[in-house]
Amino acid sequence: MIEEIRQQPAALERTLTSERRRVESFKRSVEKRRPRLIVLAARGTSDNAALFGRYLLEITTGIPVSLAAPSIATLYEAKMDYRDALVVAISQSGESTDTNLVLERARQQGALTLGITNEKSSSLARLAEHVFLVHAGKERSVAATKTYTGQILMLYLLAYALGAAVRIPDLERLPQVVEEALRLEPAVRALSERYRFMRHAVVVGRGLNYANAFEFALKMMETCYVVAERFSSADFLHGPIALVEPSFPVFAFAPLDVTWPSMDQTLAKLQGLQAEIVAVTDPANHAVDGRATKVIRLPRPVPAVLTAIPYIVPAQLFAACLAEQKGLDPDAPRTLHKVTLTL
Amino acid sequence: MIEEIRQQPAALERTLTSERRRVESFKRSVEKRRPRLIVLAARGTSDNAALFGRYLLEITTGIPVSLAAPSIATLYEAKMDYRDALVVAISQSGESTDTNLVLERARQQGALTLGITNEKSSSLARLAEHVFLVHAGKERSVAATKTYTGQILMLYLLAYALGAAVRIPDLERLPQVVEEALRLEPAVRALSERYRFMRHAVVVGRGLNYANAFEFALKMMETCYVVAERFSSADFLHGPIALVEPSFPVFAFAPLDVTWPSMDQTLAKLQGLQAEIVAVTDPANHAVDGRATKVIRLPRPVPAVLTAIPYIVPAQLFAACLAEQKGLDPDAPRTLHKVTLTL
Repeated sequence: MIEEIRQQPAALERTLTSERRRVESFKRSVEKRRPRLIVLAARGTSDNAALFGRYLLEITTGIPVSLAAPSIATLYEAKMDYRDALVVAISQSGESTDTNLVLERARQQGALTLGITNEKSSSLARLAEHVFLVHAGKERSVAATKTYTGQILMLYLLAYALGAAVRIPDLERLPQVVEEALRLEPAVRALSERYRFMRHAVVVGRGLNYANAFEFALKMMETCYVVAERFSSADFLHGPIALVEPSFPVFAFAPLDVTWPSMDQTLAKLQGLQAEIVAVTDPANHAVDGRATKVIRLPRPVPAVLTAIPYIVPAQLFAACLAEQKGLDPDAPRTLHKVTLTL
Repeated sequence: MIEEIRQQPAALERTLTSERRRVESFKRSVEKRRPRLIVLAARGTSDNAALFGRYLLEITTGIPVSLAAPSIATLYEAKMDYRDALVVAISQSGESTDTNLVLERARQQGALTLGITNEKSSSLARLAEHVFLVHAGKERSVAATKTYTGQILMLYLLAYALGAAVRIPDLERLPQVVEEALRLEPAVRALSERYRFMRHAVVVGRGLNYANAFEFALKMMETCYVVAERFSSADFLHGPIALVEPSFPVFAFAPLDVTWPSMDQTLAKLQGLQAEIVAVTDPANHAVDGRATKVIRLPRPVPAVLTAIPYIVPAQLFAACLAEQKGLDPDAPRTLHKVTLTL
């Protein structure tokens, strides 16, 4: 897992270089046939990437996005009206039977379809009209890391193809930003010792970092067996905050962007409850120092729209180091296999 | 809380009788102007009702549904293309500023708008073109119960208005079915003692009971301070199942419908891991007896499409009784107020 976390700058670089042509060709085809709706279908970590895509695509293109509930197709066999829709399935292996079925049905109905996968000879790559390949190299760890950031990169490229104000030169700086984030490894390892006996936790994020809260919680569940809840910092106030007692650990993604006033409100409330707050942030946000118990700070300020990839890196490192602290093997979590088949 | 749980048959009855005319008038207006997309906006318990609506409406009408992320409107100020959309805001108080804003913006853009609320003189009732009123009576407990089932009833009526094969006479049987479910109270109270020291749990559901998993977990978080995770039984296998060790408590909604083979697969896996499985089911499902540690069985079989309301009743009772066992006051959870304002 830790090796694959470290491979991310190279994986992002390779993906950007290799997929440019495919993205441009997709861009031309959507210029002729602009979707009225985008449907994203995925499971597990890929579904967290889809959750990011939902925010990114709505914010930057104004096209409504629906996160598919695969059972509606597979179990209830409902016939969805996906005319004028772009249906995107995201799967590391490309062999997720249920999300593949959502895409296949949609294509039969005339929807535009796109597969985002790591495997060019997968079922998904065959089923989808268009394919964006994540060039992350073979992912061996059960806990996905480099494919998550690769999928997020693809969603930026998808937004770009749909005419969003996402600039390719900005994306080209991401491998360097991730390289710098990786230098946090010794500090994160040292910090992780404090959480050796943590049994449960909450992760909060909002907007473009909401999906990172899901992904960080999933990594802690999979590799550290921590019962990690995940909420938007807004939803957290609607009930679940009742969980919090003194020292209750809450991890927060706290960039200094439009989400900060809302996150600050949540953190202030948590501070009043004497929660243990661990904030992931960057040098632009000084205000968070007055709220958090511990701060994990990226070395360089990150533009708001691009925080998703660099911000997850210290969280991935934290999960891998915490597993180590707990004497667990993050590469082979109990009960799990790399590819999960869903009825 | 327990009082309000018991008021549900009367609240459902009153809502059905009082809102028939409004529903029929809305039905006529959507016959002329059928939406291509439905957007549901809500927070907290109402958002769990929205999650149910998402499944129900897609399954029964084939119209794609998107669950709104309010921050996209409130913080990112994105201009969404909601032409031909029906935008529905769901709020007990009708004073949720962010979901109201989503609806208001959509109406300005020409979307058809509907408010589902308990308060006829609320901001939401003024902002929305159409209003469905939940006649649950004043809800005093911070933990919403009767407004949740009232909102779910409204979503059935919405599906009916959109031409779904939901029959009004079937809905008219719901108050009676809930009345019978309430007779489980002594059994649920006795069962709850076993969970006196439970600190964390997982709740799973799928399809039309997926939202109930969210709602049951929320009730346990709010009133019992149990760190309760919630997953679709399919997603649970994609990582989080690694949490499960012998005696780990998993609560499952297990009707005998199209979701059963998938739920059974998950329960079999959990049984192999020696998890403590508590299943909510009805007399139609015998197979679950071979899987679950404890079974909470409704007295009468429930048609698949109608399970959502009766199945949540024993879960509400369980949360209220468990709070009692733990010596907590479910009506006034620490930290919470009835109306939460979101930045």
